[in-house]
Amino acid sequence: MRRRLLALSLSLAFAAAHADEGMWMPSQLPDIARQLKAAGFKGQPRDLAELAKPPMNAVVKVGGASGAFVSGDGLVLTNHHVAFGVIQYNSGKSADGSDRDLIRDGYIAADRAAELPANPDYRVLVTTGFDRITDRILADAKGKQGRGYFDAVDAATKAAVAECEREPGYRCSVANMYYGTDFYLVRQLELRDVRLVYAPPNDIGNYGGEVDNFVWPRHAGDFTLLRAYIGKDGKPADYAPDNVPYVPPAHLQVSTRNVKEGDFAMLAGYPGVTFRHRMASEFANQVQWQLPARVALYQRMIDTIESTTGKNEAARVSYASQVRSLKNSLKRAQGELDGLRRSDAVTVRKADEAAMVAWLDQQPDAATARTDIAAAQAVLDQGMTTRERDQLLGVIASQTQLLRSAITLQRLAYERGKPDAQRESGYQQRDAVLITGQLKQVQRRYAPAVEKALLTELLTQYQALPARQHVAEFDAVFGTTPAQLKTRLDALYAGTRLGDESVRLATMQADAATLAASGDTLLKAAATLQPAILRLDEENKTSAGELLRLRPAYMRALIGFRQSQGRAVYPDANSTLRVSYGRISAMDPRDGVHYRPLTTVQGIVEKHTGAEPFNAPQPLRDAITKGDFGSTAEPSLGNASAGAQTVDFLTNLDTTGGNSGSPVLDAQGRLIGLNFDSNWEAVSASWMFDPRYKRAIHVDMRYMRWLLAKVYPAPHLLKEMNLPAE
Amino acid sequence: MRRRLLALSLSLAFAAAHADEGMWMPSQLPDIARQLKAAGFKGQPRDLAELAKPPMNAVVKVGGASGAFVSGDGLVLTNHHVAFGVIQYNSGKSADGSDRDLIRDGYIAADRAAELPANPDYRVLVTTGFDRITDRILADAKGKQGRGYFDAVDAATKAAVAECEREPGYRCSVANMYYGTDFYLVRQLELRDVRLVYAPPNDIGNYGGEVDNFVWPRHAGDFTLLRAYIGKDGKPADYAPDNVPYVPPAHLQVSTRNVKEGDFAMLAGYPGVTFRHRMASEFANQVQWQLPARVALYQRMIDTIESTTGKNEAARVSYASQVRSLKNSLKRAQGELDGLRRSDAVTVRKADEAAMVAWLDQQPDAATARTDIAAAQAVLDQGMTTRERDQLLGVIASQTQLLRSAITLQRLAYERGKPDAQRESGYQQRDAVLITGQLKQVQRRYAPAVEKALLTELLTQYQALPARQHVAEFDAVFGTTPAQLKTRLDALYAGTRLGDESVRLATMQADAATLAASGDTLLKAAATLQPAILRLDEENKTSAGELLRLRPAYMRALIGFRQSQGRAVYPDANSTLRVSYGRISAMDPRDGVHYRPLTTVQGIVEKHTGAEPFNAPQPLRDAITKGDFGSTAEPSLGNASAGAQTVDFLTNLDTTGGNSGSPVLDAQGRLIGLNFDSNWEAVSASWMFDPRYKRAIHVDMRYMRWLLAKVYPAPHLLKEMNLPAE
Repeated sequence: MRRRLLALSLSLAFAAAHADEGMWMPSQLPDIARQLKAAGFKGQPRDLAELAKPPMNAVVKVGGASGAFVSGDGLVLTNHHVAFGVIQYNSGKSADGSDRDLIRDGYIAADRAAELPANPDYRVLVTTGFDRITDRILADAKGKQGRGYFDAVDAATKAAVAECEREPGYRCSVANMYYGTDFYLVRQLELRDVRLVYAPPNDIGNYGGEVDNFVWPRHAGDFTLLRAYIGKDGKPADYAPDNVPYVPPAHLQVSTRNVKEGDFAMLAGYPGVTFRHRMASEFANQVQWQLPARVALYQRMIDTIESTTGKNEAARVSYASQVRSLKNSLKRAQGELDGLRRSDAVTVRKADEAAMVAWLDQQPDAATARTDIAAAQAVLDQGMTTRERDQLLGVIASQTQLLRSAITLQRLAYERGKPDAQRESGYQQRDAVLITGQLKQVQRRYAPAVEKALLTELLTQYQALPARQHVAEFDAVFGTTPAQLKTRLDALYAGTRLGDESVRLATMQADAATLAASGDTLLKAAATLQPAILRLDEENKTSAGELLRLRPAYMRALIGFRQSQGRAVYPDANSTLRVSYGRISAMDPRDGVHYRPLTTVQGIVEKHTGAEPFNAPQPLRDAITKGDFGSTAEPSLGNASAGAQTVDFLTNLDTTGGNSGSPVLDAQGRLIGLNFDSNWEAVSASWMFDPRYKRAIHVDMRYMRWLLAKVYPAPHLLKEMNLPAE
Repeated sequence: MRRRLLALSLSLAFAAAHADEGMWMPSQLPDIARQLKAAGFKGQPRDLAELAKPPMNAVVKVGGASGAFVSGDGLVLTNHHVAFGVIQYNSGKSADGSDRDLIRDGYIAADRAAELPANPDYRVLVTTGFDRITDRILADAKGKQGRGYFDAVDAATKAAVAECEREPGYRCSVANMYYGTDFYLVRQLELRDVRLVYAPPNDIGNYGGEVDNFVWPRHAGDFTLLRAYIGKDGKPADYAPDNVPYVPPAHLQVSTRNVKEGDFAMLAGYPGVTFRHRMASEFANQVQWQLPARVALYQRMIDTIESTTGKNEAARVSYASQVRSLKNSLKRAQGELDGLRRSDAVTVRKADEAAMVAWLDQQPDAATARTDIAAAQAVLDQGMTTRERDQLLGVIASQTQLLRSAITLQRLAYERGKPDAQRESGYQQRDAVLITGQLKQVQRRYAPAVEKALLTELLTQYQALPARQHVAEFDAVFGTTPAQLKTRLDALYAGTRLGDESVRLATMQADAATLAASGDTLLKAAATLQPAILRLDEENKTSAGELLRLRPAYMRALIGFRQSQGRAVYPDANSTLRVSYGRISAMDPRDGVHYRPLTTVQGIVEKHTGAEPFNAPQPLRDAITKGDFGSTAEPSLGNASAGAQTVDFLTNLDTTGGNSGSPVLDAQGRLIGLNFDSNWEAVSASWMFDPRYKRAIHVDMRYMRWLLAKVYPAPHLLKEMNLPAE
């Protein structure tokens, strides 16, 4: 009895620790109705279950991220940074010939006629179907292995998408849930006429800029209002002046209530990718090798570039963007590593997996499952035997300019030998513009000495690897000793004309035969490397197919084990609609420091320097000084009589990249916030959710209401959203 | 009646806002007994009033800063950074010939015999007398003005000090209180044999180093124990093996109680200098001109040096220290400026002064006082007419190497014409070593191109000043147009041999006649400038004398006005013993961020990187992991059963530079903390105490006790201090 009580209390503690973790498929919410209600949700969980019904169908995919309808006339709320391209597209010369800078000034469309069309490729996607088609996708794959399994799933996916897209105006995709366990056909109405309605000045929308990125406390008004239009026939259409506003099946109501610490909050959106349900060995590899190796490798690459460019100003400029990007990646990798170590992720995941296996061994089908899991582990183990090489070759192919161009040009010629539809994605006709751009960009990003120094660094590391990691073609091209490497690189870069843009662009048109006959040293090297590259691609697809076949055994065991703990399992994020719930939460980032969960306009004044990114516009500062906050003030903050005007707030909601623009709802489903960032301490949440540090950052809808009411007024939009004028 | 009530409530609010401001002379404490008791002090304020009686005579001046006796056998507690020179002095070769690094390793004297003598110039000063001698100091000054007043005060001061120091073993000084209103003779027993007893490793004593300097939350164990010795005859003596521990007249008892947010705290020490009672026009000048001008000037100097050294590595190294020092000064000036603006210091001080003047006008002696105040204001106004020039000439004289050497050498020859005692301080025989060092240092800090560029920048600014700010001798040497300046500087630096160290050192011995005959261009320039420099010195002393005569009228008005508000006035800090009281206080440094007032060892682990300044020693990390905190844990923090081991704590006590090592006492006078730093937001407190931002940072005595009990054990010292063994 004591043991059972102990077990119960442990499992309750465990459940409590994980209460706010989860990117749930809406269809799962009825299954977790009890915990959702216990957390404070006042509605019916089953009302949230269907993607194609209210309120979930008010949540849209927009500009590659998330957003929501906020009026019956197709008004869409998303982040300023998600709509940035639209704002930029409408800056410059305006219709009447005058210059305008909507990034700097913001924009308020006085009426529908003044709403400005977005760039033609900008989309709002409304989900209208979400159907489980696992059997159909796996029908042909059954009994197959490796590459065969991969190809069967790929073919069935393409067929399902093609069939679904037969109806014009829709875009379809197949979502893989639980790593190959389930497949869903997602059907989305594709709205192609999107217009800019209201954007705050960049100094509000992006207040704090890069300095505040990933930072709490935050003070950005990162929101923009767009409107979706359709043709007069009620069907999606390209922009046309006489299109009409799209009437969405549902829209969210912006809240007029107070919002304070501890309140229930819920968020819906399209998180991109997480790795939470990866195997314990993958966690260990990530923390013990992948991230430290990436940090070390990027650091050496940065050092190599910086010491080679040295005092050469032109070279420094050419490589500035690459160095900045490497530093950014390094910083993120270090942040992820620090976070996973802080959370002791490897130990926690390993103990959890061991407990799962112990549970599995008690189940009737344990033997089969253990066989599949062991086989998946073997595939992963096999991959790890060449991880150093794979990392280096990946970087060599992606972080060089001239060598990468040569490899691309050879591959292009090779793929051009196939019908367009069968070409590898990235080398089809529709990719030509992208490749041309890349080949042109080389001119501004290349210096021979730097590329040679970088390759010397990377290939010296490659040469030092044990024989089993070597690839014959690479050895043939670059030699196997530092001395050979130096000779070969000197020869390769002395004998190539690819440094000349016209030569690169002309070569893009050449067929395989012409290329084969080319005397250009780098093109010849790329020709030698190509069979290796194709072979490694093939091996990757084979592994991917095997993992697609084998991981479901692991996932089913995990789901069963969690069920035995009284917990449901959400699938790792894959850019499909998910729901997360939790509350408005303070945070203790480190000893002695406490972050309050709501910021106020006072912080805008404190941060203001008059220079970007802290250049609060005069009208905003005047309005703050005036202190006329009316119904948008939070009475529990600031001075007793007027309260304080909030700006942003912090929740413990479970988010990741792609959740930008996700609506944040209160217990009654009213819109209280707009997600736009997460905190630095949460970078590691893509692998592990640590409730101590995982937070999401939102624009308080009261700040948006105040801006629309008092600072950059748009009374007609407040009226359209059924909101008070002040 | 309503007006009187309003006035009363305003004055109560005012008093409340200032309740924790004040660096009180101990003798003032009985006057503020009521507010001291209201704040929570449980003792008798009159017991604190006498510097030469307990507990105040347990507070000592040590190593130029503060400290306190903590045992009856002369054990002195001060900061690790205050005793750093002693620790450094005892590192290197030890008596037995082995190398030792006490900075790295720390030190525990196993017994008295193992206590290590400090560098011979290290002092512990015990105040034994503090007597008001205003009448004596001002007797001869009465009726005089300007330079005459200055000289009379100077002579009376020197005479009083000489008389007091006739008794061997004492050091005396005269403290000027309230800007010339009162003068006190301070008599201090000078203990010359000081020994190192216990120092933690630098990685504990200076944990966080420069990175954490001025930062909260903080995690340094910035303390060291010394012991004062005297001769067997009971008199102060130089170090001798058979000296005996000094028995202090009193010592403080380290507390064994809990310490938590809101608790009363009190601090005694030797704060250096503040400007709180300067006139409103001086506040305005500081914020509106002095600090912004300093920031701009230093920035241009940094830019000039950096752009001139450019890619010249040798020049960069030569100027690295000067650039670092300029950047540091610039940062502090900017911090002070930001703080004074944040506190709206100019407006607040101006309104306060206006209210004081309105009050003064109701007093019987208003006319005389107003006359003196107006005259003081006129002296300040006169000074401001040449502030741009004075700033530039000051920088030219202090921030150049060769020109400064030439000026020094000429002045030295001039002063050598007088008897040593009458020479200007800085040019006496005892200064020779310092000057030689300076002249030698030039070699490592000089590059002709940089000095010329710096002078071009500074003198171009000087040339642009209006005619009334010009000095004929400077115009004669450097010309009055940029073209002349270039020609003159080229000639000056082409025709000097002062770049040669041997020439500089040889010139140091030359008499005025030899120097007058020198053909060296820079020495000739310095000879031309010298009359101007002497004249400006003279003018400064005249102004100083006038202000010394006139400011007391302002101070008496302020004291009377404050009295009418029910408030006492402490004198601005001047390195004499002061007492401040307040409480352990959290802080809201900016919107959304809350600093808790106690840090714990958990923060040491969080900050630990394994590299300085965050390289927590292994024994410390092991002890933290072990979690055996015993009686030193704070039960209100951490986990419920064990509490948390605190490290540092934050109070709202009023401190400034010089307060390092000040003991922090609880309501019963027990020692709970050791002051060692203040927060960045408080840099501006030298001018204005803003209760929202002014905090002081202390080592929690429980951290010291825990280190002595569990980490680097010294049970004999715990016993000596009457503290539990764990």
